[in-house]
Formats: sequence, structure tokens, C-alpha cells
Amino acid sequence: MNVAIVGLGLIGGSMAKSIKNRTSHTVWGIDLNAETMTMARMCGAIDAPLTEENLPQADLILVAIRPGAAIEWVRQHAPQIAKSAILVDLCGVKRTVVAAIAPIAEERGFSYIGGHPMAGKERGGFTASAEDLYVGASMILTPDKRTDMRLLETLKAFFLDLGFAGLTFSTPEEHDRIIAFTSQLAHIVSSAYVKSPEAQKRRGFSAGSFQDMTRVARLDEDMWTELFLDDEDFLTAELEELIGHLTDYRNALRAKDTQRLHDLLKEGRELKATAGGN
Amino acid sequence: MNVAIVGLGLIGGSMAKSIKNRTSHTVWGIDLNAETMTMARMCGAIDAPLTEENLPQADLILVAIRPGAAIEWVRQHAPQIAKSAILVDLCGVKRTVVAAIAPIAEERGFSYIGGHPMAGKERGGFTASAEDLYVGASMILTPDKRTDMRLLETLKAFFLDLGFAGLTFSTPEEHDRIIAFTSQLAHIVSSAYVKSPEAQKRRGFSAGSFQDMTRVARLDEDMWTELFLDDEDFLTAELEELIGHLTDYRNALRAKDTQRLHDLLKEGRELKATAGGN
Repeated sequence: MNVAIVGLGLIGGSMAKSIKNRTSHTVWGIDLNAETMTMARMCGAIDAPLTEENLPQADLILVAIRPGAAIEWVRQHAPQIAKSAILVDLCGVKRTVVAAIAPIAEERGFSYIGGHPMAGKERGGFTASAEDLYVGASMILTPDKRTDMRLLETLKAFFLDLGFAGLTFSTPEEHDRIIAFTSQLAHIVSSAYVKSPEAQKRRGFSAGSFQDMTRVARLDEDMWTELFLDDEDFLTAELEELIGHLTDYRNALRAKDTQRLHDLLKEGRELKATAGGN
Repeated sequence: MNVAIVGLGLIGGSMAKSIKNRTSHTVWGIDLNAETMTMARMCGAIDAPLTEENLPQADLILVAIRPGAAIEWVRQHAPQIAKSAILVDLCGVKRTVVAAIAPIAEERGFSYIGGHPMAGKERGGFTASAEDLYVGASMILTPDKRTDMRLLETLKAFFLDLGFAGLTFSTPEEHDRIIAFTSQLAHIVSSAYVKSPEAQKRRGFSAGSFQDMTRVARLDEDMWTELFLDDEDFLTAELEELIGHLTDYRNALRAKDTQRLHDLLKEGRELKATAGGN
């Protein structure tokens, strides 16, 4: 296949590297940053730049830029996209993006499905991208009434070739609700956690848990502001849920209520056991 | 040296294994759990049980049980401790423990210093203990007016032999203030984070950040309830600080205030950079 990748940051760059390392597909890529384009060509992550000329020959188009920019790119380039092509956006929110792109794809006659690879890093950009970023990860897709089995079979084979463990199907709504908790809330907690004045005085006093809590505070505020605002309803609800629970612990501590504190911790341990994860 | 270890859980068991793997010291250990004693002897983590008979011959005594139990153990066994011996408790809080043990040590004439190895795991007990738990970690000690240089030199050589990267000196007060933030608060956040109903529905939707946020929710509620209550003042203050910051993000989100949200995230990124860590 000819695979076009729009945006060669952490996500798009890792797609390019994964494809070139693990498959025989051709990759055409485009990034606004000239240095990124040079690096991507020099290290063989792309075969050639994506242009107005080769876009119509793309069989699969992966859009790996921010939600607003992704919608705008599709709007502008839809006339050059072949009716036989499949377009997948890789944005971290799905309701706003799918609602804007799906009607354009339907009108123009090409295939479209929303996607979100469950992989990331605390650093962004092409230099942080890696050919093994997606190994063992889950690829979320949001099929709709236009999605047929052949499209899903094609994408399944493609993503498994890149090292993904499997596909997870979701509605845009369910995706945005769960991701508000599993990813977005974690970024806000990290960002808030590091604001205690003690964070600057902690040297020699930290084991793994401080690192865990603050790893993703090293985030790109431009991107995350957009993602958070696109998911404001679910994210605000999760944030309020967490603040409520933290207040329970605070109240138990302040009252020196041993039994209550013990119960809260025990409940957390049990919920972690059923939620799973390391 | 003859090293006595009181409590063979994660911390004491790892001390025993580190000593036997990395030094030629003799280790005598004691644990209330009979199975732990059998395992510790079978795998060579201790040379013999610590008894009323050999305790007077111990040169170094490491007390690795909970704060209240540690104080009680020292109170009961002080008469059997040699005046030439050094006793170090490894409890996770220092004010209550040092305030109780230091006067006993002074009265009986043996050396005492509070300690806290900056290493841990989300699982406890002898089975989780490891001979490399302390590799690269910092060992916090709380010297006081009775601490002389010879004592510190002896302890420095001993802990470096076990793989520790170095010693960090602190007052009990400073220790408890910083640890409330770097460790205790992280445990409360993990325990609270996993309480969202979404935690139970997240399969296929999680990358690293959910894992980071909830790893230590798998805690021992008996131990942590005691540690938290012994550090209630500092921990409550940190919890209120965090709740305040989280509320700032919540307010910016709810108001859809792009600039404010962006500023909050930028500030977090900058503070993470100066705070350091992965």
C-alpha cells in the first residue's frame, strides 16, 4: 500500500518508523517542521514527502496532528483523496473529530474511521518517535454505519503488522469518556502534583512513586489544552470525582479517624485488584 | 559485624538478602511470621534466628517493623542491647519514632540513629524482598547531638556495601515533611484515583499513565494507616495543596478558559523540569 502520514511527531513519526521497519508499504509523510522532514527522510522513516501530486495515489491516510488541524487538513484535501482510500485520524479525542470528518468522507466517497493508538511517551516530537512504540499496544477504532468488514480486516492486518496487540472497538462517546479517566486525568494530576513547593526540595527523598506521579507533567501544553477542552464534560466529571475522593481521605486524616482511613485504603486496594494493571 | 534484623518484610528481608549477598557480615533475623522465618533460613537470607541469647552480641540492629511496634520492641529489648551496639530503625516516619527511641538509647548508652531507605515496591512481605532493592537508592539518616563521625563512617561504609548510592542527612521534621509529599501523598492519590467507576471499564483504553497513577494503590492498609496518622499534619497540608491545584484546573476547564488552562499546564511543565526526575 501507499501510506500517507500527515504529521510526523511522536505518533505519526512512530507510525512511519514502524511501517518502514516492519512492512513493505511505501510511506509518504508531511510535517510543517522543515527539520523534521529532513530527519524523517535521512533516517528512512518516509520514502518521500506527501505532496498534492501523490496524495491521490495514497491507499491509506493517517492523520496524526491535533484535532482542529486534523479537521482542517481533511476539509482542504478531501478533493484530492481517492474514493478507494481509507483515512484514519489518530487524534486523542474522538467526538469532535469524527463528527467533523465523517460527513466529509461520506460526501466525497472515501472510507473513514476514527482511531487512537494506546501508546505514548512523556516526550513528544519526531526525535521521541520509535519503531517499537506500538508493540503490545491496543489500537482503538470507532466504526460506524459506513464501516464494512473488509475495511476492518485491512486495518487489522495493517496494525497487527506494526506490533499492535489488537484492535479495540468503541463509539466516539465511550472513547472520550474512558480516555478522560485513563489518560487526561493522569496528565492533570501530574501537572498539579508537581506544584507543591516540596517538589523542588525533594532530592534524596524520592523513590519510584514521586516519579510515577509526575512523569507526564512534562507535557505539551498546546496539544493538551486542545484535547482537554474537546473533552471538557467528561474530564471535569472525572476531576470532580477524584477531588471528592481525595477530600474523603483528607477528612479522615484531619479527624484522625483510624477506622475510616483504613477502610478508604482497603477499598482502594480492592478496586485496584479488580481494575488490574501492574 | 553481627547484624540483627527485626522484621523480615520487604524492607528487613531486602536488608538481610543484600547483606548476605554483598558482604561477609553475619545476619540474625526475627519475624513474627513462622513461614517467613523458615523461608529466610532456607534461602540463606539469615544465618540464624535473632534470640534473647545472641541479641547482646549484635553490633548493628536494624528495626524494620511498623512505628508503634518498633518503639515497643526497643522498649522491651533495650536491656539486652550492648552499649557498643548501633541501632537504626527503618520506619517510614521519623518524628514519633525518634522521639520515643532516642531517650531510651541515651539512657541505656547504645548508639541510635533514625533511618529510612528510599526504596520500595507496590508489594510487601519477605517474598517481595530482593537483594537489589537498595541499588542506587538514597539512605536517609537523622543524626542528632549524640551522633559522632565514627558512627556515620561505619554506617556509610555499611550502606554503600549494600548498593545504596549515598546517605542523605535530615532532621526527623524535615524527613516527615518531604516524605508526606514524595511518598505518602502518592499513595493516597493512587488509592483515590482507582475509585472512579471508569477504572473497572478501561480495558483496551490504557497506556502507561493509568498504570503510573494506580501502581501503589496495592498498598498494605494496616501499615499505611499508621504511617499516615503519624504524619497527619504534613500529609493533610499536602493533600489540601493538591486539592487546591486540582480545583484550579477544574475551574479553568469548566469555564472553558483556554488561556488559564494553558498557563496551568505550562507552569506544571516548567516546575517538573526544575524538580527533575524521569
